[in-house]
Amino acid sequence: MSMKRNENYDNLEQSYLFSTIAKKVNEYIEKNPNKKIIRLGIGDVTRPLCKAVINAMHKAVDEMGVQETFRGYGPEQGYDFLREAVRKYYAKNNVKLEPDEIFISDGAKSDLGNILDLFDKDNIVLIPDPVYPVYVDTNKMAGRGVNIGVKFIDANGENDFLPLPDKNVKADIIYICSPNNPTGAAYNRKQLKEWVEYARSNNAIILFDAAYECFIESEDIPHSIYEINGARDCAIEFCSLSKTAGFTGTRCGYTIVPNNLGKLNKMWLRRQTTKFNGVPYIVQRGAEAVFTEEGLSEIKENINYYKENAKLISDTLKECGIWHVGGKHSPYIWLKCPNNMKSWEFFDYLLENAQVVGTPGAGFGKNGEGYFRLTSFGSKENTKEAMERFKKIFL
Amino acid sequence: MSMKRNENYDNLEQSYLFSTIAKKVNEYIEKNPNKKIIRLGIGDVTRPLCKAVINAMHKAVDEMGVQETFRGYGPEQGYDFLREAVRKYYAKNNVKLEPDEIFISDGAKSDLGNILDLFDKDNIVLIPDPVYPVYVDTNKMAGRGVNIGVKFIDANGENDFLPLPDKNVKADIIYICSPNNPTGAAYNRKQLKEWVEYARSNNAIILFDAAYECFIESEDIPHSIYEINGARDCAIEFCSLSKTAGFTGTRCGYTIVPNNLGKLNKMWLRRQTTKFNGVPYIVQRGAEAVFTEEGLSEIKENINYYKENAKLISDTLKECGIWHVGGKHSPYIWLKCPNNMKSWEFFDYLLENAQVVGTPGAGFGKNGEGYFRLTSFGSKENTKEAMERFKKIFL
Repeated sequence: MSMKRNENYDNLEQSYLFSTIAKKVNEYIEKNPNKKIIRLGIGDVTRPLCKAVINAMHKAVDEMGVQETFRGYGPEQGYDFLREAVRKYYAKNNVKLEPDEIFISDGAKSDLGNILDLFDKDNIVLIPDPVYPVYVDTNKMAGRGVNIGVKFIDANGENDFLPLPDKNVKADIIYICSPNNPTGAAYNRKQLKEWVEYARSNNAIILFDAAYECFIESEDIPHSIYEINGARDCAIEFCSLSKTAGFTGTRCGYTIVPNNLGKLNKMWLRRQTTKFNGVPYIVQRGAEAVFTEEGLSEIKENINYYKENAKLISDTLKECGIWHVGGKHSPYIWLKCPNNMKSWEFFDYLLENAQVVGTPGAGFGKNGEGYFRLTSFGSKENTKEAMERFKKIFL
Repeated sequence: MSMKRNENYDNLEQSYLFSTIAKKVNEYIEKNPNKKIIRLGIGDVTRPLCKAVINAMHKAVDEMGVQETFRGYGPEQGYDFLREAVRKYYAKNNVKLEPDEIFISDGAKSDLGNILDLFDKDNIVLIPDPVYPVYVDTNKMAGRGVNIGVKFIDANGENDFLPLPDKNVKADIIYICSPNNPTGAAYNRKQLKEWVEYARSNNAIILFDAAYECFIESEDIPHSIYEINGARDCAIEFCSLSKTAGFTGTRCGYTIVPNNLGKLNKMWLRRQTTKFNGVPYIVQRGAEAVFTEEGLSEIKENINYYKENAKLISDTLKECGIWHVGGKHSPYIWLKCPNNMKSWEFFDYLLENAQVVGTPGAGFGKNGEGYFRLTSFGSKENTKEAMERFKKIFL
């Protein structure tokens, strides 16, 4: 071909994490058809959308069927009614945003990927390990990679999976996810302040992934990086209704690009108006309902359901003397495999002896080796039963 | 800042086309508060969604509110039920697609922009003039521009705004939009075959924008470029339900990346699974309903409504002896301004003398100068009245 492909795609690795898990589980089921498998590896919500959202979407669907209320193209950055709802949601945490700093999106994953459009290839990017794989893959697509612009920062047992900046390391773009996927660890106010100060002294940009903020239950853990002084000068924030309101299949999020970031705000507006056509009107009305009094109270019930599962898992691990982070402020529990087992070794052990399925930490980066992720998105009954099985083995 | 921006964004021009139109119209209204303005510049659909779509979306909303039928993350490339519906829709025009060649998207604009991710900066890109501005802007964002990888091909009165390939010009990536936005001109089978042969002999890729295919009413105009032999080896096709089914505010489209295109199919899958999370389940169920017997019959009513407007405009222009293309196979009518007026001159003349608003062709590229775009998305009553006013002036 004369047409030249983007050969950076050739540097992407295939992930076999979830396909290997599925294969191992299926093999086990074939050999043991009578054993009941409990899946605590689920990364997706399972509770249905709340009533306020359902009602709002029905109403919006009706509007779309009538000439007088039909809506065609909307503003790419989102309808004012939803941006205003997001503005008020931030104001509850004393974060003051201008409406033109709020961009409604179809989810944090899209925007975390697409935001790289705004940056030159020639930047040093700091990514924590273990990590949500999208951060690494999108940088590889843009021509960066290990030793070509990407530096990893170690999250590990020594720093409770909450690494702090190393002033001797230079960076231009910094990924932070707190509460973290996959570890569930969450930075407190003092720790995040260190990151903001580091970014400002490096003239760097923090890409802050706040997708799990709704699980936070302590005053000391910021919901938004803009709760830290100076963050408006150095951070873009991504959030989503996926975990907050069960929108993984409904698709709506929001990205904050402060006007303090020079041209980046207008660049993102231009990117979105050129390469995006906005979130469906019906979905935006559903999202608006999340932020009503009724909606907030209803989604809290679902979040609490998951939180109780997380607490049960964390309490059981404590009882069994298994070291872990997460379980609080997060749907994820990140445990050190007992008896110094490796991640996949523990996966096999747990499947064989407790018929519980989780996710080997090694799948998220080199520092994940020897660790294991459980999630709280299963049903209460299954989570309880899984923890009884843990106690039988590890207590 | 140490962080380096993508400075290609600085090469983007601000378009003042629609803001200038709005300003001129508002000024006219202020001076002439009693005159009735008729807008035939609308680029958005105005008819509501059809019943089949509304019913399907209500049903899907209900499913999302119940534990047993709730859906979380779906496949990024779309649910099988919708890809199968698209496959069958193509089969009606004797185009055979494999399911894994079909990618459900949130609209043609997003995918037309994002597809450039798959190509190296170092490609020669051929773009028609006049043009849908997104083709040019997305290339500029990627570092291309006039004299840096972008070549324009002239669409003009001499070739009826349907330029054919020039074998002396070399290209790697070729944009074709047929039926065309903004001109409404549509390539016939023989002409498209020339383009496919040219692309194959250049080892180039055609990016084929089929967003207006539903307006085609003649056997001789292909709905899909894959109706041409050999196109599977050289073309990616983008289509959307925006104009087909009034989805401009509901957001659903589809992109075809044939397996014959080497690695490009798997690269696009990787791009979408990494930077996109799929179209909302509710919207995909609405889109599925478009392709049912009931849906197809209902959307036809809306399309015919617009088509009748287009025919009325075209017939009136013929009667007045005004040269134009489009009006058939398209919601757009592209006319040569009478008396050799320039585009903006005619805009002012029409506003002053007929109180009809359209879009100056000069806004779509240098070859648009002296031309003017009218659209058929207004109401029947207003379109009729506008044409009566045309007759009074030009007959």
